[in-house]
Amino acid sequence: MKIGLIGTGTVGGGVVEILEQKEKEFRDFLGVRLEIACICAKSEEELAPFKAKGYTVTTDAFSMIQDPSIQVIVELAGGYEMPRKWITAALENGKHVVTANKALIAKYGHELFPLAEKNHCHILFEAAVGGGIPIIRSIQESFVGNTVESLSCIINGTCNYIMTRMKESPLSFEAALKEAQEKGYAEADPTFDVEGIDSAHKTAILASLCSRRYVDFESIHVTGITSITSQDIQNAKELDCTIKLLGIFNRVGERIDVRVHPCLISNDHLLSNVNGVLNAVFLRCDNLGPTLQTGAGAGRLPTASAVIADLVSLARRTDSGKSVPLPMGWFNKENAAKLLPMEETEARYYFRFTTRDRRGVLASITGILSENQISIESIIQKNVKDPGKVDIVVITEKTAEKNAVAALEAIDALAEISEKSQMIRFLV
Amino acid sequence: MKIGLIGTGTVGGGVVEILEQKEKEFRDFLGVRLEIACICAKSEEELAPFKAKGYTVTTDAFSMIQDPSIQVIVELAGGYEMPRKWITAALENGKHVVTANKALIAKYGHELFPLAEKNHCHILFEAAVGGGIPIIRSIQESFVGNTVESLSCIINGTCNYIMTRMKESPLSFEAALKEAQEKGYAEADPTFDVEGIDSAHKTAILASLCSRRYVDFESIHVTGITSITSQDIQNAKELDCTIKLLGIFNRVGERIDVRVHPCLISNDHLLSNVNGVLNAVFLRCDNLGPTLQTGAGAGRLPTASAVIADLVSLARRTDSGKSVPLPMGWFNKENAAKLLPMEETEARYYFRFTTRDRRGVLASITGILSENQISIESIIQKNVKDPGKVDIVVITEKTAEKNAVAALEAIDALAEISEKSQMIRFLV
Repeated sequence: MKIGLIGTGTVGGGVVEILEQKEKEFRDFLGVRLEIACICAKSEEELAPFKAKGYTVTTDAFSMIQDPSIQVIVELAGGYEMPRKWITAALENGKHVVTANKALIAKYGHELFPLAEKNHCHILFEAAVGGGIPIIRSIQESFVGNTVESLSCIINGTCNYIMTRMKESPLSFEAALKEAQEKGYAEADPTFDVEGIDSAHKTAILASLCSRRYVDFESIHVTGITSITSQDIQNAKELDCTIKLLGIFNRVGERIDVRVHPCLISNDHLLSNVNGVLNAVFLRCDNLGPTLQTGAGAGRLPTASAVIADLVSLARRTDSGKSVPLPMGWFNKENAAKLLPMEETEARYYFRFTTRDRRGVLASITGILSENQISIESIIQKNVKDPGKVDIVVITEKTAEKNAVAALEAIDALAEISEKSQMIRFLV
Repeated sequence: MKIGLIGTGTVGGGVVEILEQKEKEFRDFLGVRLEIACICAKSEEELAPFKAKGYTVTTDAFSMIQDPSIQVIVELAGGYEMPRKWITAALENGKHVVTANKALIAKYGHELFPLAEKNHCHILFEAAVGGGIPIIRSIQESFVGNTVESLSCIINGTCNYIMTRMKESPLSFEAALKEAQEKGYAEADPTFDVEGIDSAHKTAILASLCSRRYVDFESIHVTGITSITSQDIQNAKELDCTIKLLGIFNRVGERIDVRVHPCLISNDHLLSNVNGVLNAVFLRCDNLGPTLQTGAGAGRLPTASAVIADLVSLARRTDSGKSVPLPMGWFNKENAAKLLPMEETEARYYFRFTTRDRRGVLASITGILSENQISIESIIQKNVKDPGKVDIVVITEKTAEKNAVAALEAIDALAEISEKSQMIRFLV
């Protein structure tokens, strides 16, 4: 199988490296021949080390895509406007596509998958979600005899590293972010990760796979981790919980509930112990029950390893005659999922209120909660941080989101409340 | 795809149930038509409920196997002498095979896989190891761009249930076994599970997949969990560890190290928190790094769900023309792995010695350990259980197995040692 590779960055370089390591093994052991026919990058400089090794190189992606000897385009360039054009051209030229581009799949999957289907081409994207965790293949193939009832995932390594260091060390959010940046686990501009956008792309893709419906990632509720304080982490510890940024999918009758936000997870849940840059996906299926997969969520070789798995799978399928791609037409907007509005969700809530005067305000807070039909499970007065400041932590029983939001707004309007109050949902 | 099903027990019934649930979905969504053409069991009584629903039934497996309209035989009968004959006949008749029979694969894989290869037939066995955990497909397909460096697995739900209850409750081994039997998690004769034989079958299969060599399960070291006492569990807790029965695979140069025995696992390792009847497989790969998969290891619908995944995969492959099975010739005895002898392994060890007189014996014990080149990491004198009895727990530094065994033998020969001493390896 002849491959046209676009992108010579971290993952692209990793794919070339693994193919050099294992190409002979694939040939001898699997009878699969994977050959990089051409490598494309933006500049001659980026291509120079590959040219020096004898690879055919180009800076013209479209001419490579039109090369009739190439059967599959591997897109590892990042961004999405150019990849969208390249992949459209590849599919129109009858070429299969392997990509690690979650933003592209989340944003333009609804036009690319129907096009692939029309042209009898595969788009494989195991590397796009969870790096080395084979979650796409698991949902599509291994768990095919199941209906996925719910999914919770730790799907952004940057956020998980920050949350882990805030708990372990303990560091402040800012210090943990700085450490992540120094170690190369966070970008100079970390917005995309810490605001939950990357998690939303991946969660939308997983929710699509689980529901077999189009999920518009722009319609799902997203809260990042920037408002989580060391005090919240410490309070969670005292509740025998850990705070993680989760992507969540639930079936609720005919509708689905998809969201990304920090969660308090009980320490006896397997997800609570997935630390550092590791990712994890916890699924609950009708026949299988609960399953968890964890592994590297990003990085050169783990992500490249997922691309290689897609390439080997494609080669094995296409080598044995015509190959019918898995139906992905449900990424089509006409097949959109009905999303449960956030205000209709329910959870147990952790509230943290900061006040100057505990005695006066407690009656007001509990009054507002009561007016909003919120039952209190426990109240903890926390140690004073600054002189004259008191934290009050309230854990609620199961509450409707709209009531929680209304109560929080009313409490934040009290004169005695000195900072914006915190609200974090429990996983269960 | 027309299916001949042998076995109407727990898993066989589950397969029929899931096909009834999802057959329409497979047809509409995947374009895959799975049809149970015939069901075979030992007696008319077992077949009666299926016959009542309109299925074609038979008590003659061989006539079903020879039916030219059937493309795949699903073997869920258990045992191994008859399944060996059925599957041999099926392969000779050019039929694919799906089985959940780990004992059969471990014992006769070396003759069945080469026969399958000769006849261009698939043998799929996802359900044989780890029930609902898609570990076979993950190793063969998702991790194909990797060399598996090591594997540790909790692969027997009965033992994991017992170890969990001994820790949580805490119960004695006998009480935990009794509870497992009452809940249907252990057989009336639990030997096969608690002595580690079932784990050895599964570990041998996984080691074969990881090494791509034939691994004779009868050559691997197996210790079960029957000697683990409540005191050991308690001591492990104090060391911030959990005891689990593990299947282990390591690459050691050109040889492989495969064994099954209880291990002390540090509580910050993900495996330590896999509880109850759950199974888990922890892998370390060259490119991917560490990964863990956990889920139901047994049970009607989880196991049936793995059989269904194999059937759908087979239907999708064979529907699209000729399909090349994955090479499995390495199950052939000519391709046997070189096993590292147990005495050449190394570990940190937990020893528990029971004595009547601590002061006198401690010098003898430490003397013997020293003579055997064993360095001590820590010594803990444990509370007296019976009047006049003292437990001495010794944690060693990394030690050669042959030295540990020699020291233990010498210590057990001391007059002051009143019970057979305990030896448990640390995972790392």
